[in-house]
Amino acid sequence: MDINAIHSPADIKGLAIDELKQVCADMRKALIAKLAARGGHVGPNLGFLEATVALHLVFDAPQDKIVFDVSHQSYVHKMLTGRMQAFTDPAHYADVSGYTNPDESDYDLFSVGHTSTSVSLASGLAKARDLKGEHHDVVAVIGDGSLSGGEAFEGLDMASTFGSNFIVVVNDNQMSIAPNHGALYDNLTLLRESDGKAEPNYFKSLGYDYLYVADGNDLESLIAAFRKVKGSSGPVVVHLNTEKGMGLPVAEIHKEAFHYHGPFDAATGESPADDSADYIDLFADYMLRAMKRDSNVALITAGVPGAIGFGPARRDEAGRQFIDVGIAEEQAVAMASGMAKGGCIPVVGEPATFIQRAYDQLSQDVAINRQPVTFVTLYAGVRGMTDCTHLGFFDVPMISNIPGILFLAPTCAEEYEAMLEWSMGQREMPVVVRTPCGPVVNREGDFDVDYSRCGYEVVSEGERVAIIGAGAFLELARQSAAKMIEKGLNPMVINPRFMSRLDTATLDKLRDFDTVITLEDNSVDGGLGQKIAAYLGDSPVKVHVLGLPKEFADRYRPAELLASCGLTAEAICSLV
Amino acid sequence: MDINAIHSPADIKGLAIDELKQVCADMRKALIAKLAARGGHVGPNLGFLEATVALHLVFDAPQDKIVFDVSHQSYVHKMLTGRMQAFTDPAHYADVSGYTNPDESDYDLFSVGHTSTSVSLASGLAKARDLKGEHHDVVAVIGDGSLSGGEAFEGLDMASTFGSNFIVVVNDNQMSIAPNHGALYDNLTLLRESDGKAEPNYFKSLGYDYLYVADGNDLESLIAAFRKVKGSSGPVVVHLNTEKGMGLPVAEIHKEAFHYHGPFDAATGESPADDSADYIDLFADYMLRAMKRDSNVALITAGVPGAIGFGPARRDEAGRQFIDVGIAEEQAVAMASGMAKGGCIPVVGEPATFIQRAYDQLSQDVAINRQPVTFVTLYAGVRGMTDCTHLGFFDVPMISNIPGILFLAPTCAEEYEAMLEWSMGQREMPVVVRTPCGPVVNREGDFDVDYSRCGYEVVSEGERVAIIGAGAFLELARQSAAKMIEKGLNPMVINPRFMSRLDTATLDKLRDFDTVITLEDNSVDGGLGQKIAAYLGDSPVKVHVLGLPKEFADRYRPAELLASCGLTAEAICSLV
Repeated sequence: MDINAIHSPADIKGLAIDELKQVCADMRKALIAKLAARGGHVGPNLGFLEATVALHLVFDAPQDKIVFDVSHQSYVHKMLTGRMQAFTDPAHYADVSGYTNPDESDYDLFSVGHTSTSVSLASGLAKARDLKGEHHDVVAVIGDGSLSGGEAFEGLDMASTFGSNFIVVVNDNQMSIAPNHGALYDNLTLLRESDGKAEPNYFKSLGYDYLYVADGNDLESLIAAFRKVKGSSGPVVVHLNTEKGMGLPVAEIHKEAFHYHGPFDAATGESPADDSADYIDLFADYMLRAMKRDSNVALITAGVPGAIGFGPARRDEAGRQFIDVGIAEEQAVAMASGMAKGGCIPVVGEPATFIQRAYDQLSQDVAINRQPVTFVTLYAGVRGMTDCTHLGFFDVPMISNIPGILFLAPTCAEEYEAMLEWSMGQREMPVVVRTPCGPVVNREGDFDVDYSRCGYEVVSEGERVAIIGAGAFLELARQSAAKMIEKGLNPMVINPRFMSRLDTATLDKLRDFDTVITLEDNSVDGGLGQKIAAYLGDSPVKVHVLGLPKEFADRYRPAELLASCGLTAEAICSLV
Repeated sequence: MDINAIHSPADIKGLAIDELKQVCADMRKALIAKLAARGGHVGPNLGFLEATVALHLVFDAPQDKIVFDVSHQSYVHKMLTGRMQAFTDPAHYADVSGYTNPDESDYDLFSVGHTSTSVSLASGLAKARDLKGEHHDVVAVIGDGSLSGGEAFEGLDMASTFGSNFIVVVNDNQMSIAPNHGALYDNLTLLRESDGKAEPNYFKSLGYDYLYVADGNDLESLIAAFRKVKGSSGPVVVHLNTEKGMGLPVAEIHKEAFHYHGPFDAATGESPADDSADYIDLFADYMLRAMKRDSNVALITAGVPGAIGFGPARRDEAGRQFIDVGIAEEQAVAMASGMAKGGCIPVVGEPATFIQRAYDQLSQDVAINRQPVTFVTLYAGVRGMTDCTHLGFFDVPMISNIPGILFLAPTCAEEYEAMLEWSMGQREMPVVVRTPCGPVVNREGDFDVDYSRCGYEVVSEGERVAIIGAGAFLELARQSAAKMIEKGLNPMVINPRFMSRLDTATLDKLRDFDTVITLEDNSVDGGLGQKIAAYLGDSPVKVHVLGLPKEFADRYRPAELLASCGLTAEAICSLV
């Protein structure tokens, strides 16, 4: 059948196995064409194609509930549930998001983007079903990589106590985003090598019945396995051995590079070269130098080495000083505290959106203990990731209000390196260094200072009006100042350096100014500007606090979002 | 020997086994006397007494590193490491904190109070040791109850991959704070019942060698076991079967009540009755009524039923609508989202300090998905728990800056119930209802309103000066207003109701006032007052933002802390 005739899972339920295999082949072809044209999560979707077809063939969604972990592997699910056109017609490629999205379809149960949540979310659906006396299957899909996350463990541990239908499909492609890390993966290897028969068995230790599918890309095996567990009266794990990137040779070979990939040539896998230097490269190169200089320096990632500039080559170069704990942000942060206590110089590199998983560890394991861990957030601010599940707006309100953590926002390459250098050289406190996003800025300044003592940097002196531009928004402050100068004003421009504390001496000098404008590249609520407004609240100066909105903006365009918040030089200039 | 002659572990190392047993008996007697007089963590310390003696006999702290989970079981450790007087001399009872504390002793490695962190912290010490080429043992002590926390799993999963010495002592007393929940506990039962021989074995599945000690209160068995693993070249779990409350009959019988207990009669276990009604009772009674009225209502706790008013009797009454997920805050929050999606009315009751473990789940699993989960924080504000590891100051800055969550701060019993009622009756959004701490306040007002639409409550009209008193601090606002009236002023008093959004219509009316004073029972940074100051920043009104400090205050006295922040009626009155 023409895959464009598939509008819901009902359309494939009557098909013979050969027809189903042809549907798989045609969907794979369409998927590769779209991925090559637009980029996306290549490996996860190609590897889980047959399993998705088998799931929708055997289970009856949306009555049966299928919850995808991360949901970066849900493209085929979208194709089968009314959204085929978004994968076969280039004019409609942008119709769907890259994750499950309840606003798109009733088949999508949750808006998901972080890892390790599917079992917990599905356990809630199962518990609700049981309390309400309903009867349907609940299926949680989770990749091997996500199993290292604490939330996945907590979900597995609890859901199997319910004593009712609960099916966990483990999509084991022997990879996380990058290689897996954790002893659990030795157990999965043991299970694969023993055709699922070996002990110990992690899943059985948590109360699950267990079924192993040796070829998780073989449609018939998958259908048979899912039919076996459908209607199960207890908890069961179906462990699928799948091939990440299946059917696209370059993705099968280069599994890490093709986990997520931008547009590429489908035949060769080649993509347009991007030679522009960015802050991530600056960070990675700096860290390599720092590790070579001092064997006590260690760089820690929670499963996202590539996102912090450490692909295979740099990892090799860093050797044992580069530590990937797998997708386990709590462990990354708490272990870093222990390493600092043990005399090392740990640096945790983490996308701003993912460090959210470790609020309590930042507060308890690190901050109360005053351990000198350096946290480097990346993809922060308006030019970070633009999916509502991956926003980089909230690291400042989340972390800067925790006591004892110094939160630094560098404004240029020189200041970025100076702050990293200072933080790694001190033993007094945990520090966050927020990596700017966007084009690399270079400028001269007095950056080699003691950040435990120094105050704001006055970038240009002025009078009556002060613009305080934090981090990447110092450039916006300078542009706004330039516009004001055209209007005949002489604004002061300030780099506040700190998101977590105030330079009251400098702020006191602004008390008899007419206007103070604060600009910050993060959600304005709970941020720096509100602190400044409160501090200056009893003086006559007018304070305008500008920043990103407190909302889950989704697939936004940075320029549009900035304009909607008044964050353009023109709009800022019009405030005075 | 006289236990007062023990100043360090060296003092017990030469003792014969009978002498050691006498030391144990004498320490137990002293411990019970102090616990009876002062209260504290009764069961955990009595049950881990022999194990602590054996640990310090076999290992050589502080060169060898012993990390205690929660560290509520570290009293005997303190007795053996230079702090005996704090347990034998009533005049010195207050010299030590209830948790490990590096400011007290080099034997205390971390300031700890939340659960499930010891393995991760210890793994950092082990990794630092390995990177630095040092050689000593690293021992993580963890209770069975803490094993359900995701951070503990992440730590176990990672630490065993290091391929170096790492010893995990599992203190299995078959209890969490309350009964355990999770399939893992069936596995522990299986292991105990098989003398450690059964498969599956959770610890082996994570790569650990495994040693079982059937009588974890038998000093000789413990010493033998620890000697066996000391110097181990790989990861090993020593699983101890201990008796919580050992040696104090009332604590052995009433394990939940005597996990933590106030002062009591050592012979009978009786303690002075406290008949004063509090908000926790209000909450628990309200929830029981709500659950009886609607079978879709479910109350969820993450291992602390007693802390939310649900001791055994109320749990029995609630039946299956009361769900304890064990110590697993991430699971509690994410499961609640799934339950809401499945049509239930989930309420998560959680001490303000512990909900920190679930920032990401609040944001991702709940808020992005707009699921109508009601979160009730307890022990919030200055009158919550006073250890630096258990502060209730930070729930407002942490949660109120997450998009999409309505954060309500009731000011009295009537408003508290009305907010709970409203929240559980709507399906649009997640809501936090912050339980006031301190004496129950009753007052009349218009509380049965639509909290998705309504604005601030003007409690008393006035002019020129407005005092905005949030939550429990409305009373302080009223007292301050009374003082101002004595001075001839006529202040407006406002209950803002919301910590997460502004009533701009009411605030606009204050633009031509002389002074606005905001009072909030939480860390002032990232809180409500700063938002109000920013909103009013471009108007001439003076704004004073008052609240609790952004610091890890430790064992503070509420009245003193309030005075230090200017949070007295006198100090507030002096602002105008």
